[in-house]
Amino acid sequence: MKRQNVRTLSLVVCTFTYLLIGAAVFDALESDTERKRWEFLSELRDNLIRKYNFSQEDYRMIEIVIIENKPHKAGPQWKFAGAFYFATVVLAMIGYGHSTPVTYGGKAFCIVYAMVGIPLGLVMFQSIGERLNKCASLVIRRGKRWLRCRRTEATEMNLMLATGLLSSAIITTGAAVFSRYEGWSYFDSFYYCFVTLTTIGFGDYVALQNDQALVNKPGYVALSLVFILFGLAVVAASINLLVLRFMTMNAEDVRREDNELQSASHHVVTLDGEVMAVNGKLLAGHMISLNATDAADQVSVCSCTCLAHRHHNHLNSSNRSSPSLKVSGCHRLLSICPGSKSRPMPIRTHKNPRMRNPSTGLALLGGGSQIKRASV
Amino acid sequence: MKRQNVRTLSLVVCTFTYLLIGAAVFDALESDTERKRWEFLSELRDNLIRKYNFSQEDYRMIEIVIIENKPHKAGPQWKFAGAFYFATVVLAMIGYGHSTPVTYGGKAFCIVYAMVGIPLGLVMFQSIGERLNKCASLVIRRGKRWLRCRRTEATEMNLMLATGLLSSAIITTGAAVFSRYEGWSYFDSFYYCFVTLTTIGFGDYVALQNDQALVNKPGYVALSLVFILFGLAVVAASINLLVLRFMTMNAEDVRREDNELQSASHHVVTLDGEVMAVNGKLLAGHMISLNATDAADQVSVCSCTCLAHRHHNHLNSSNRSSPSLKVSGCHRLLSICPGSKSRPMPIRTHKNPRMRNPSTGLALLGGGSQIKRASV
Repeated sequence: MKRQNVRTLSLVVCTFTYLLIGAAVFDALESDTERKRWEFLSELRDNLIRKYNFSQEDYRMIEIVIIENKPHKAGPQWKFAGAFYFATVVLAMIGYGHSTPVTYGGKAFCIVYAMVGIPLGLVMFQSIGERLNKCASLVIRRGKRWLRCRRTEATEMNLMLATGLLSSAIITTGAAVFSRYEGWSYFDSFYYCFVTLTTIGFGDYVALQNDQALVNKPGYVALSLVFILFGLAVVAASINLLVLRFMTMNAEDVRREDNELQSASHHVVTLDGEVMAVNGKLLAGHMISLNATDAADQVSVCSCTCLAHRHHNHLNSSNRSSPSLKVSGCHRLLSICPGSKSRPMPIRTHKNPRMRNPSTGLALLGGGSQIKRASV
Repeated sequence: MKRQNVRTLSLVVCTFTYLLIGAAVFDALESDTERKRWEFLSELRDNLIRKYNFSQEDYRMIEIVIIENKPHKAGPQWKFAGAFYFATVVLAMIGYGHSTPVTYGGKAFCIVYAMVGIPLGLVMFQSIGERLNKCASLVIRRGKRWLRCRRTEATEMNLMLATGLLSSAIITTGAAVFSRYEGWSYFDSFYYCFVTLTTIGFGDYVALQNDQALVNKPGYVALSLVFILFGLAVVAASINLLVLRFMTMNAEDVRREDNELQSASHHVVTLDGEVMAVNGKLLAGHMISLNATDAADQVSVCSCTCLAHRHHNHLNSSNRSSPSLKVSGCHRLLSICPGSKSRPMPIRTHKNPRMRNPSTGLALLGGGSQIKRASV
């Protein structure tokens, strides 16, 4: 079976096992309390029913009134501030459900709004996340230079640590703020922040639902929204790294298959779109072992006539820093696939030595120009 | 300012504008109904309070009893089936909030569980989505071949259409099923399916909460869970394409910057990790215009001595199908960056002509080996 299929199947099995374990633990942790709560609430209810001698119909009516009235107790939910809060909660896929559209038009608009808004939000969070990763990698590089480390690049592990720390900082700070404003315990507030920033959004704790905050506390409303949006961007930065990590795994699969084909028979070598050259290092990391010296025997030194003379001096200098090999003077290397319309594929021209550093696939999304895959 | 920064800023501005528009529309659609509902509910409540002459304390007690009792009405939520449902809802980030942990241990475990489960779930959904994209691209290719189309590759647009259609099919079918089992109107059921599969999960409509379904209807429970998990995988397939689309945009930015540097001064050309060679076509698509003929003048024909004789025959055949250019006989093209440890970067060796088709960046995640970027 293909490696990707095996991986997908293993992931499905893993996830189901994880769900089963989770179910067992939640059952063990909550089931008993649930039963006790239910008994206690039933007793209370029975006492109240006895005390007031409700008719069955009236009790159902009271139930409906109280449940339907719950969102209204927090003040108007659909005036501009509340509607903005709701739109944010939809776009970010949090969906607390503290207030939901009840009209046909509201539900229909919500569907259409989410269809456009969710992709827009995803791309925005990804984009901010990518910029944050870039910043983090710059800070890490400077820090390492300042500490006179031998290798100053930000590794993938460094970046994951950095975004992890930033996420923790945001959640713990947010927890302190909400705990103060909402009157929750610090633990509950932390739980709220975590559930919000992972976009689970149970809605058991929802900010801005006390003291008509949506109407009376514009500053707090703004703070909450900034917390949600910035927090989600930071989480996106972490997920950025994770998704990319997975994608590079997939790329490795494709490459491994190629290697198998390659070892079976050697044919034309093309530099087409299917080469996962996101990261020379990554791709090279798992190759049929060829050390630098062996590889030197097989190196292709491409040299097109154009520009070659202009590159000569620089080539020498690059040769000094590069341990062994070079592909020099090729202004363009061209895609030569039958269906490719033969458009040229650019090979990177470097202006300064900094840019000659290799990067991992992370260059795609996040601050990758200086990132190195720690695990390779 | 850097293009990526400009794009991120534009995205933030766009998203905020979109939120403002959404808030205005939701306000217009829901505000009036909310006011009327509130007035009606207040009147009902006042009538009931008058009728039964509740003390204020008793009314608060009734409120608490009824609200806290709501999840219990649907039967035990934390017995195994319910706990499994909850674990799924956490892992998939839906978070209906129909039942939430109330114990300290339950909340703490929920946090830890989500920290591991969400990345696991994301990767699984991505992986299934990628396999689905691959299947879709195969079906599209066969369909096109059967219809004797000139170009049989699955374009990005084809794939987006395919996953879009599949998502719609799942949501509409799901809506019919839930409408029947839950007694919702078809529209409400559609709204439920949409809100679930986008992982918004308001929790205003939640399946498996009637007639003690979690305990009494194991078949329906299984069906619901399969719907959620498979549905999310299909949505992941669509998001796959979207995220990748964004990532390739980023890659284009990096490349554009390079082009600017390149036009400023020509230096050594390296084939290092920073080259976004995910897709020769994509990268080439926006280059300083060089048509195939112009490009042919600049083509680098690399030929290493090793293996060249073995490739000779195949080269000729590939030459026939390739319109103009080739990089032939290069067994390896090597990364020559100063920090790259000079590990070789593989250039794809093709065994059969099918594999010579160029692919877009989509090859990374989804069925990409045969996908072409329609928009380039």
